[in-house]
Parts: sequence; C-alpha cells; structure tokens
Amino acid sequence: MTDPDTRHMSHALALAARGLGNVWPNPAVGCVIVAGGRVVGRGWTRPGGRPHAETVALAQAGAAARGATAYVTLEPCAHHGQTPPCAEALVAAGVARVVVALQDPDPRVDGGGLAILRQAGVEVTVGPCAEAAARLQEGFLSRVRAGRPMVTLKLAASLDGRIATATGESRWITGPAARHAVHGLRAAHDAVLVGGGTARADDPSLTVRGLGDVPQPVRIVWSRHLDLPLLGQLAATAREVPVWLCHGADADPELCRAWEGLGARLIPLETGRKRQIDPAAALNALGAAGLTRVFCEGGGALAASLLSAGVADRLITFSAGLALGAEGRPALGAMGIDRLDEAPRFRLVETRAVGGDAMQLWEQAGPATIF
Amino acid sequence: MTDPDTRHMSHALALAARGLGNVWPNPAVGCVIVAGGRVVGRGWTRPGGRPHAETVALAQAGAAARGATAYVTLEPCAHHGQTPPCAEALVAAGVARVVVALQDPDPRVDGGGLAILRQAGVEVTVGPCAEAAARLQEGFLSRVRAGRPMVTLKLAASLDGRIATATGESRWITGPAARHAVHGLRAAHDAVLVGGGTARADDPSLTVRGLGDVPQPVRIVWSRHLDLPLLGQLAATAREVPVWLCHGADADPELCRAWEGLGARLIPLETGRKRQIDPAAALNALGAAGLTRVFCEGGGALAASLLSAGVADRLITFSAGLALGAEGRPALGAMGIDRLDEAPRFRLVETRAVGGDAMQLWEQAGPATIF
Repeated sequence: MTDPDTRHMSHALALAARGLGNVWPNPAVGCVIVAGGRVVGRGWTRPGGRPHAETVALAQAGAAARGATAYVTLEPCAHHGQTPPCAEALVAAGVARVVVALQDPDPRVDGGGLAILRQAGVEVTVGPCAEAAARLQEGFLSRVRAGRPMVTLKLAASLDGRIATATGESRWITGPAARHAVHGLRAAHDAVLVGGGTARADDPSLTVRGLGDVPQPVRIVWSRHLDLPLLGQLAATAREVPVWLCHGADADPELCRAWEGLGARLIPLETGRKRQIDPAAALNALGAAGLTRVFCEGGGALAASLLSAGVADRLITFSAGLALGAEGRPALGAMGIDRLDEAPRFRLVETRAVGGDAMQLWEQAGPATIF
Repeated sequence: MTDPDTRHMSHALALAARGLGNVWPNPAVGCVIVAGGRVVGRGWTRPGGRPHAETVALAQAGAAARGATAYVTLEPCAHHGQTPPCAEALVAAGVARVVVALQDPDPRVDGGGLAILRQAGVEVTVGPCAEAAARLQEGFLSRVRAGRPMVTLKLAASLDGRIATATGESRWITGPAARHAVHGLRAAHDAVLVGGGTARADDPSLTVRGLGDVPQPVRIVWSRHLDLPLLGQLAATAREVPVWLCHGADADPELCRAWEGLGARLIPLETGRKRQIDPAAALNALGAAGLTRVFCEGGGALAASLLSAGVADRLITFSAGLALGAEGRPALGAMGIDRLDEAPRFRLVETRAVGGDAMQLWEQAGPATIF
C-alpha cells in the first residue's frame, strides 16, 4: 500500500465507516485533505447526515486547502440542498486535485459533482479503492439503485443451527463477546428488524447497549395483524427510540390507533394472496422512508422469508459450541426447497472466533452485490 | 521457539503425526536424534505400528548416536514384544540424553522406559511440548486410560445445519476443498464410522481417495439389525479394505453369515433396554479390537447418540454457504434436550475457510480432554 492515493483513500474510508448507521438517508462519506504529503483536514458525515464530510475537512484545513488534494470516498454533491454543493465548496477553497473512490449514482449528482470540479480546472481522479467504497456504501447504493435498503441477516445458533430448545429456552446460546458484537452491528445499521413472533416471545428492546452514548437505530417489527405486546419494552420506549411497525392494511384499526398513540410509526402494506407481509414491498417502503441499512435479527420465519425473497444481502452467522438436537427451534423456518440448486447461496467473506463462538460473514453469491 | 528442546521436540511431533491413522493399536511416535546441534536421525512409527520411531532414527544415526540427545514424543517402550524395548536400544546406541514429551500410561511401560534409561546413566528430561503431545496422542491415551478410541465427529451442513433437502438431495452441500479435507481426515484416523441409515441411503465407499497410495482406514457401520445393502459398495469391497459391523446380538443369523461370507468382521453387542446400539459399549468393543482414532461421518441419528453419550471428543463442522430451511434434514437427530444447561458443550479450537466453506474444530469443554 505504498501508492499515496490508495493510502489516503483508505484513510478516508476508515473515517467514512464512522457514519454507518447514523447518517441515513445520506451516504456515509469520508474526506481527507492532503497538502505536501501532510494530512491537513479530516472529515466524515456527521450524525443525521450533515455537515458533509467535505465541509468538515475543509473547515479543518482552512487556508491549507489551497493547492491541496482532497480524497473523498464518494463523488462530492452537486445539488443545492440545505447546504451549497460540496463540489463548489472544494473549488472555492482552492483545492487543486480531487480523488474520488466512486461516482455517486444518485440522479441529483451522477457525475455532476465531477463536472463542476473539472470545469473549474480542478484535476479529478476517479477509482482508487472503488471496490472497498462500494462495499462500504452498499446500503446507500442499494437504496439509490434498487429503492430498498441493504439487509444484513444475523443468525446466532447452536452448532447444529438451533436458536432455542424445544421448550423455548434461548438465553444464552452465544457468549458475551458475540452478544457485544451484535450491539456493534446494530449501531452500524440504520434500523434493527424482527418479526412479530420474536417481538411477542422475547419482548426485546432492540436498543444498542454497552457502547456508550451512540445514536440508536430505528426499531422495526413486521407484523401482519399488529398483535404485538402493548405493555412490552418496545411500546414503553417508542417515544425515546423510534419504533416502526410494518403491518397488513387489514390490521385492526384499534390496534393501529393504540400504537400510534404510543408513538410508533405505522407502515401499512398490501399483503396480497399469500396473506403475509411481502419482504420486497416492505423493504421498498423502508427505502422510501429513507433507510439504507437494515439489520434483521430473526426469528426463523422472517429470516426464511427474506432468504426466499432473495433480499438478504449479507449474512452474519454466529455458531456457539453446543449441540441442541433436532427438537430445538430452527434458525430458519420453512423455505420449500426440494433441490439443492434452488437454495439461496452465499460467498464466505470472513470467518473468525468471537469469544468462544465462531462468526462468519457471507455475501450474496450472485452478481447483485458486485459493483 | 528458541529453546532447543522445544524446537527439536516440535520436529519430532511433526514426524509423529505422519503415523496418525496407520499405526493402531500402537501410538504414533516421532523421534529426532541430535548431535552437536545437528539432526543425525529422524524416525516415526511405520504403518502397522513397527518399526518404532526410535529404531528408525537410531538406524539412520548409526555411530553418530553415541553421546547424542534423542527427542521422543512418548516414553520409549520397556517391554519385550516383537522387538527389544526401545529404551534398551537407546542405551545400547550410547545416547547420552533422552528428552521425552510425555510418559506412556500403558501399564507395560508407565515409567519403566525412563527407569531403564536412568539406570544406565542416561540423562532424562520429561515434559517439553507435553500438551501438544497429549493432543496428538489423544486416541492412544483414550484407549489406554478409558478403554475406547477417541471419536472425531464430522458435521458438514448448510449454514442452517441441514445435511440434505427434504427430498434427500445431499450431493453436494460442501465444496470440493472441504470434501478433499474430509479425505485427509479419514486418512488420519484408524477407522471411519457411519450409521446404518447413512449406509443404506448413500451407499458410501468410505475410502480415502485423491491422496495417493495411503493406508485405508477400517470402515465401520453400526446397525442393530444388520439390514445393510448386500450389493452395495461396502459389501463389494470388504475383502480389500476392512469392513467391521457392530450389530445387535439379536440380528438375523443369516445376515450375519452373509456378511461374514463377504469378508466383514462382525462385532455383536447387547442392545439393552433401549433396543439400540449403546455408543459406550460399541466404542469399548472397538477399543478392545485395537482402534485408537475413529472418525464418525453421521448420519444425524448416530451423531446425536454419540453427543448424548458424551463420547464425541472432537467435532469438525463444515458450514456451506447455502440455506435450506426447516424442511431440510437436520445434521443432528433428536437429543431430548429441554434446557440449555443439558446441552453438550464444546470449546472452539480453530475456525478457518476451507475453499468456500467455513470449518470449525471444537473439543469437549469438560476436563476429559485436558491432560
């Protein structure tokens, strides 16, 4: 990694990652400004989505930005929103060269930022660390291109794929290190999602805990009938940390009013012939609401439905060192697969120990996630 | 690893490992003879269990053994069997110092080899790499101490713990690299074991393939009724590679005669009240027959019964990147576990990628495998 462009862009990507989970609907961008080989400004998209990374880095660099090179993980914006476009700010600061990892496919930008820079005589390079940037921005890119957030599905199970005993005991199968890692994963996503069965059985709070004062992800439950515990943890805290409920359009209006009264945001969906929530429709609604990264924690029926619909982009599996046998509750519900070539397939990205448990990261094997 | 005793003993352990799976009922021992800092002899237990490692290394060292140091992974033998004891051979060769990783608990040795050396004025050190030696010798030690072979259980499944679709399709879930690794694991064990259901469903050959001309492990099937395919691969090849059948004492005598006629070795067992083969009794019989390392490849019912009986010493899990859902056949059969604290627990030793699959090695969490 001796190439300076790669080195500085890697730095910018590390900064960008700090925004994952807390900048939606904006992309998590990082920016490093380098003058004479020295870093004179660093910035990343701030919680809530602004100021943008370039604004922060330029403010830090001040006069040192004149003649400098700016490394930005995503094409600087070209559109006048709540702030002037970053491309113009870079020109105004006198930056001589801008290196961009990835062009922004957002139709409001899509080369417009690069055009502003080039027209002002700024040297522009596109491409260093493009693959890493696409991976980091996968949620934002998915929303721009496919209209839905990226979905990470977590499966935490015994070594034979069970998430509870036959009697329902599930606390705890994985160890404290894996559970702590899950809080980190929640924090790096815009929202945490569970099915109605899990919300009823476990009464989870779905908040990020043990990581200090970090922004909390939106908490989402998919429940066709909205038959969720009105006295549970989600209900009690819906005014402090957002609760969004995706439900069938035919859910009981009284339950709808009750949840709205508790502070939840209701997202009604047509349920269609199968009489259950359609994952693609629900994710489109969540994308329209601004979400870019959704972390699903089960249960087995929801996990199976996401996999069957082909919308689980990443899988994170934790395997604990215990065997529960065939009576245990399966990590995945029924999927109707008769032949191996019908099974959704994933590519192994990483495997490592997390405490006493084994963790794997898998990605969709198809071309959907290859940019 | 600058300490010379540790360095040379690690070398001897690497040699010893070559004997795993092909020296039963003897231990797989390695020996390195060092004179003036130079290795002058290397040996390991040869296929079939003899010559012993010391004999091979001394023959290679010749006159250079005089005044040298011998590193042996297990205490040299003290008993006159088909060959004179190795302890006497080391003395006769004029070795000045013997370093031993582990004392041999075999009652025919058990300190006797060390005593012969000390009485002859040879300097004796016991202990370098003792833990690694105990791990390598776990099968031999298990047979000496507990009367049964060490059992390694393989589970190769989808990422949700399924070994076939609902219709029984199972070829292939794991990829070629994992399947090749399984052949290496077979070769490093004295015997490969499957249940009767797997023998009927898959008609496996259970041989080692793709590794050149290596000794073949014994092939064992547990089948209470001996209702195994008389026209299958095991039957056809029982005279070339041993087939041992553990069956209930009440199995049909005609089937017994048929299998004996095909060349199989029959091991009748009392089946007791549960009317199925008792894993502990079967393993004791296999230990009495000389086996030290058994590699079990399922199916789910046999795997569950080994786990429930607490006799699965090591687990090797392969997780493939596909999801099969709850209708798929489970890697483990019923285990009757209601509470998490009843579940057999394992300690994660290693996790890594093998081709596109994730592999984990687990060991029994209890003190049984800690020497």
